[in-house]
Amino acid sequence: MSAIEQRVTPAAPLPMDARQYAALPDPFPMWRGGQLHGARCAYETWGTLNAQRSNAILLFTGLSPSAHAASSAANPDDGWWQGMIGPGLAIDTARFFVICVNSLGSPFGSTSPASVNPATGQPYRLSFPDLSVEDIARGGYEVMRTLGISRLDTVMGPSLGGMVVLAFVAQFPGAARRLLCISGTAAAAPFAIALRSIQREAITNDPDWRGGEYRADAPPVTGQRLARKLGTVTYRSAAEWQERFGRAPIRADMKRHDPFASEFAVQGYLESLARRFVSAFDANCYLYLSRSMDRFELDAHGEPVQLMRRARLEQALVIGVQSDLLFTIGEQQALARTLEAAGVPTRFVPLPCIEGHDAFLVDLKTFSAQIGPFLNST
Amino acid sequence: MSAIEQRVTPAAPLPMDARQYAALPDPFPMWRGGQLHGARCAYETWGTLNAQRSNAILLFTGLSPSAHAASSAANPDDGWWQGMIGPGLAIDTARFFVICVNSLGSPFGSTSPASVNPATGQPYRLSFPDLSVEDIARGGYEVMRTLGISRLDTVMGPSLGGMVVLAFVAQFPGAARRLLCISGTAAAAPFAIALRSIQREAITNDPDWRGGEYRADAPPVTGQRLARKLGTVTYRSAAEWQERFGRAPIRADMKRHDPFASEFAVQGYLESLARRFVSAFDANCYLYLSRSMDRFELDAHGEPVQLMRRARLEQALVIGVQSDLLFTIGEQQALARTLEAAGVPTRFVPLPCIEGHDAFLVDLKTFSAQIGPFLNST
Repeated sequence: MSAIEQRVTPAAPLPMDARQYAALPDPFPMWRGGQLHGARCAYETWGTLNAQRSNAILLFTGLSPSAHAASSAANPDDGWWQGMIGPGLAIDTARFFVICVNSLGSPFGSTSPASVNPATGQPYRLSFPDLSVEDIARGGYEVMRTLGISRLDTVMGPSLGGMVVLAFVAQFPGAARRLLCISGTAAAAPFAIALRSIQREAITNDPDWRGGEYRADAPPVTGQRLARKLGTVTYRSAAEWQERFGRAPIRADMKRHDPFASEFAVQGYLESLARRFVSAFDANCYLYLSRSMDRFELDAHGEPVQLMRRARLEQALVIGVQSDLLFTIGEQQALARTLEAAGVPTRFVPLPCIEGHDAFLVDLKTFSAQIGPFLNST
Repeated sequence: MSAIEQRVTPAAPLPMDARQYAALPDPFPMWRGGQLHGARCAYETWGTLNAQRSNAILLFTGLSPSAHAASSAANPDDGWWQGMIGPGLAIDTARFFVICVNSLGSPFGSTSPASVNPATGQPYRLSFPDLSVEDIARGGYEVMRTLGISRLDTVMGPSLGGMVVLAFVAQFPGAARRLLCISGTAAAAPFAIALRSIQREAITNDPDWRGGEYRADAPPVTGQRLARKLGTVTYRSAAEWQERFGRAPIRADMKRHDPFASEFAVQGYLESLARRFVSAFDANCYLYLSRSMDRFELDAHGEPVQLMRRARLEQALVIGVQSDLLFTIGEQQALARTLEAAGVPTRFVPLPCIEGHDAFLVDLKTFSAQIGPFLNST
């Protein structure tokens, strides 16, 4: 075992678990065909639903996080948006009832390609039906119905979650009063498609992938690591890598002596992040979720301005980041214009952060200053 | 054999060959240690060296091209910079004697990891000594000496060639009167390092790579294709992919029915380019050349302003592209400032092309309008 392998141990199971589960209708129809039986959607909540059931925020996630967006009594571990959700924070749980949905197709509790197909007693793997952003949206919709909510205060999400938000309002008009889309898009750009398809190919090329039938003790980690590294590089910006790493050499304890081994700090960082991700994320789930992002097209549901008019939104906030390579600021602006054209009072905020697509995870101060006032404005 | 494999046949050997070869000094000392015996450097020329031997332009290339930059009587095939080099063109062969150097370490004629080591009778493969940008520069220097040239009119190059140009003037002060650097850099940024190291890892992870000892009939094409795709995506810009491909579906004849097969035109385009490249480019050569770019640091030769002063340059042109992700416009500007601080009359041209790093290969009109007037200004 090399030095680097000794350093990074697989993620231990969460010591505590705040997840709840909504049973999905049986059968659960998938947007591109096929259906699921006995499916469920995992979620976590913070705050209290008021008597009118009018203070709920439904939060969808990016490709990789679980529903654990913030700590709670049931699970005190930091969440993926720790510092954003809590009493007095931008998403104020003293005021709102916040529901974070684990995407259908994700391995963190919702039904996914890693789940057992009740018809066969075996994991679905590639027999899982085509997954669409629309299905993830429907999963969240069923969660809110399970909780007795008929109209959300706000539906929101970053990245893939920003696409899901659009699929949500297109499919369930009137189910949300307000929309908050962060670094999402109405349809992926070819640059993002190209990069994601290279990531998928890194996994499907790995002989250990075995056409999706990998062994539990030998998943396609080589391809998964490569895919995650490429993700990590492109989720940020050249300016940020320069500021953080420059040309610093790799830490001595990360150094290996293979031919063409890593020599720079930035390479060591990517390696350690990739190893952490690979130990936690099922490869087939990654493939399904990644492809769903390429395929999403809001206008498959109709003319976008008409769709947004029909959605009966009272207010919208669209946040984008100027250094985002994957979900460009132009895509954010186009979405804001669609909402405005539909008569939705919309604020478009192009942020100058240098952290690229991932800025919402990093620059909490800047994002809080936009999200908090929007949510608290009514 | 799939449809796509039938469409792309390996590049046939050049029907005609304009290459000439300069024997390198024996031993040829490598910059990071080690030496080569019986090594050579391939090159092609256009135009006529004048009696004073004062009209020579030495052109270094990017990572992948050969010395065949333009057609000639000896090889009428189009070259990689066809339309840029010729009588009356921006690099005017009615006026200049143009030498394009095949980089040491490249598989297209110069000594490389794919060459036979005379000491063993076997290909060098990974026993080839560490390759540096400085060694490529020295190869070009030996070519010009072989041709009886002691001082170039201009040393120039794009991309890797732009780094080589800097290594050239740092190592051989006075050997060039003018410098023309296109989308090069004095030291690679961590974003570019990260992307290149992912490309290398795609190759070294391919089981067919076999630690560099791949079979001639079974090179690591899977990893090479992946590496080339990632290169191609990042050599351009998101805006260009949008303009060229948008979300058009893949051409019917490129479609396959594997799980997670390509669905968009941009994916088909990347696949066809990658297959063409892989059939032509030796994997170990790619690894050596790619790593040399990460490692290059002009200031390893001394304080940059002092270096440029010592180089006795009379004029410089630095061209960069605003949409270049890999060799950012800031790096071009910093280089121009170094040259200015050294007292070299320097013109810095930030171009608004949308073709990213590869713009010099695509937007010949815009580049010609800068390169021609500069070269013809004396």
